[in-house]
Amino acid sequence: MKAEIITIGDEILIGQIVDTNSAWIAQRLNEEGVQVVSKWSVADNREAIMAAVTHALDTSDIVIVTGGLGPTKDDITKKTLAELFGCGMVEHRPTFELVEKTLRARGIAFNELNRAQAMVPECCTVLMNYNGTAPGMWFEQERKGSLDEPSRDSEQQSVSNAMSGSKETHHAVLVSLPGVPFEMKALMTNEVLPRLRAHFHLRAIVHKTMITFGLAESVLATTIADWENALPSWLHLAYLPSPSQIRLRLSAYEVDGGEAQLEIDRQFAALERIIPAYVLGYGEATVASATADLLIKKGKTLAVAESCTGGAISSRFTAMAGASSYFLCGVTSYSNEAKADVLGVNPEDIRKYGAVSREVAEQMACGARRISGADYAIATTGIAGPTGGTEDKPVGTVWMAVAYPEGVLSRKMVYGKLREQNIERASATAINLLRLVLTGEADTLINEGLL
Amino acid sequence: MKAEIITIGDEILIGQIVDTNSAWIAQRLNEEGVQVVSKWSVADNREAIMAAVTHALDTSDIVIVTGGLGPTKDDITKKTLAELFGCGMVEHRPTFELVEKTLRARGIAFNELNRAQAMVPECCTVLMNYNGTAPGMWFEQERKGSLDEPSRDSEQQSVSNAMSGSKETHHAVLVSLPGVPFEMKALMTNEVLPRLRAHFHLRAIVHKTMITFGLAESVLATTIADWENALPSWLHLAYLPSPSQIRLRLSAYEVDGGEAQLEIDRQFAALERIIPAYVLGYGEATVASATADLLIKKGKTLAVAESCTGGAISSRFTAMAGASSYFLCGVTSYSNEAKADVLGVNPEDIRKYGAVSREVAEQMACGARRISGADYAIATTGIAGPTGGTEDKPVGTVWMAVAYPEGVLSRKMVYGKLREQNIERASATAINLLRLVLTGEADTLINEGLL
Repeated sequence: MKAEIITIGDEILIGQIVDTNSAWIAQRLNEEGVQVVSKWSVADNREAIMAAVTHALDTSDIVIVTGGLGPTKDDITKKTLAELFGCGMVEHRPTFELVEKTLRARGIAFNELNRAQAMVPECCTVLMNYNGTAPGMWFEQERKGSLDEPSRDSEQQSVSNAMSGSKETHHAVLVSLPGVPFEMKALMTNEVLPRLRAHFHLRAIVHKTMITFGLAESVLATTIADWENALPSWLHLAYLPSPSQIRLRLSAYEVDGGEAQLEIDRQFAALERIIPAYVLGYGEATVASATADLLIKKGKTLAVAESCTGGAISSRFTAMAGASSYFLCGVTSYSNEAKADVLGVNPEDIRKYGAVSREVAEQMACGARRISGADYAIATTGIAGPTGGTEDKPVGTVWMAVAYPEGVLSRKMVYGKLREQNIERASATAINLLRLVLTGEADTLINEGLL
Repeated sequence: MKAEIITIGDEILIGQIVDTNSAWIAQRLNEEGVQVVSKWSVADNREAIMAAVTHALDTSDIVIVTGGLGPTKDDITKKTLAELFGCGMVEHRPTFELVEKTLRARGIAFNELNRAQAMVPECCTVLMNYNGTAPGMWFEQERKGSLDEPSRDSEQQSVSNAMSGSKETHHAVLVSLPGVPFEMKALMTNEVLPRLRAHFHLRAIVHKTMITFGLAESVLATTIADWENALPSWLHLAYLPSPSQIRLRLSAYEVDGGEAQLEIDRQFAALERIIPAYVLGYGEATVASATADLLIKKGKTLAVAESCTGGAISSRFTAMAGASSYFLCGVTSYSNEAKADVLGVNPEDIRKYGAVSREVAEQMACGARRISGADYAIATTGIAGPTGGTEDKPVGTVWMAVAYPEGVLSRKMVYGKLREQNIERASATAINLLRLVLTGEADTLINEGLL
């Protein structure tokens, strides 16, 4: 089963928004065993939408269109779809009433633009959007195996036609969804995916992704080369690198009652024994979620003292539901006065060693632990850039410390010139330092000269 | 001049990474007057890359390909491009030396995988990547106006052929870049854009984007309808909504020495007079950057006290270079003890009114101001969700306060059920409250019953 995702909007082609919707949709479709063969972004005009949708319906079974449904003038998706599927527009009363009610609840006056949102192509099934004002729409179209375009697809199609002795037909599905992420997500989850399951027979694809942290891609690849080369040929391994962690994904089509899943689990278990200290977890695990899980499991609490990371570490923990069970307090002590007055860092040491120093990082961590009563504390102090570096301490220099009941551990890192990256890397690495303390692997790595 | 962006990688189609590169590339190309006609994401395999690149070279003048260049097994872009452009692979010595040096500086051992990174198609110009190990590559291909595909494009082409009396040919350009964002950005800025300017004659497109905050899309559209309807027909207006701000973009092809730019400036100046309190600024302005600019201009300092936003407000300010000139201290007081002990909130009031209350929000703001010596302070306390709500204070309830030299101002907002959204909206709205205090518009809005 093949799918194509089409995102509509000048704002995407002009680069003014980043398309996060299609990644999310692709994940959901993959989990259902639907292969996303391509993603297209096209402009908010009739011809571009027409061309993309026509092509997608020719080559895929499922077409998910997002965007181009807002109340304002530049949205013409709905009319183009009506034209394409050959029907007129009608008012959809339940949507009209829902839009009216939604706006009333928000204290916004109902106007003509909102009235237009309740107009839908007559030939679609409306998917009610309880989180916004633009409804989702489900279209079906008879799909014929076609011989006049000799693409790979239609060749396969013609083989199956020959085998079945008749021209195979089935209904392709096109779904149009609003571009606002949480509206789209609710519609996909509650309406689209259940309907797709009912409409098609879907072959499951099995994925599992291991999250590694702390090894560069080429070092990781070399370290695990023997394991990788011994993988069965039907398992596909992909490296998914990002600045601070590398994900390894194993995937396979499910062939036989859970066998693929079991083999993937076995292979990853073997890999964990090869690189124990570098495996954060699986799936959506991040260094923060892995660390939070350890704190929760041990019933321990956390405080954070940040200078160069500026609240990013606190933010990573508190972004996760349930943070209040272990996160007590964070202090973004940007000024030297805040380091001294709020965290109790010795002003004499700031003067003597500088704000970016082992001494200050350690005192910040200990101070955060003391003022909050937390079991553990993380601290960072550094030069995020782009300016502020010196010869001794160039931009990208970061001291980080972890205070724990028995003492304090600190490390210096030197990153690059880019502020955003330096904040991201320093946050992740400082959190990982706590993770290694919590798992007990910090000692092992230190003994082996690897930390 | 038309361009297509192709992003390569199973990880994009499978939804495991969000493609931020293509938005950035599209912005840069647009600034040069190049129209991005579509963006494609295709899988990391020979056939898919071949098909996408062939199609793009048929329809566009400029093709930018990102991704698929890492040192590990699943990257085959380079070989496919060599095949497509009909040449072999050679070792590129300067890249070899650069990779060796880069890895040495990072303390990573050079291995066979890295050696492969210095292999490039013989028919390309190598663009040196000083930030990573995968080089950029520049290919040119003679482009012929083609008559056998009767698309809109080739019709136009054949008209111009007929007019010039000969089959027009020029060289299309394909550039292959690494997928790591900061490596790609450096190569685009330093190599690709200057070369494209030299290679093509580019007609400038003029954009300007106004950032509005605080009006729902339909209200904004109604409020500015008269202004919008009176726009000259050659100016194109687009609404670019996001959860907490709506951007309005005016664009036009530059026709006559800055005239389009001047008209856009005039139109936006007129719009500012219609919705003064709701205009944050232009371009990349955010509510945080607009507020930071005001603080810097006035020489004032800031502190932050966060509960439900958990460091996100501090993080937004400190993510911007130069934050240390006005940002003194942030406290993420998640526990009631931290609210009392660090910020000096009266524990009796927490007990009496609850942690999510006007009293606590105001005391947090005043406490942050007091402990840091800042001129202004922002505070938030709320129920981010997904759990923790009560009948009186459902999930999404947030109290926010701004303390300033003359007093303290507080407001309650009730958002939805989604934690991430609630944190984002509460952060933005609380920062905007400070912005309105700084501009003096808070008083006006309060008098008019709009705040």
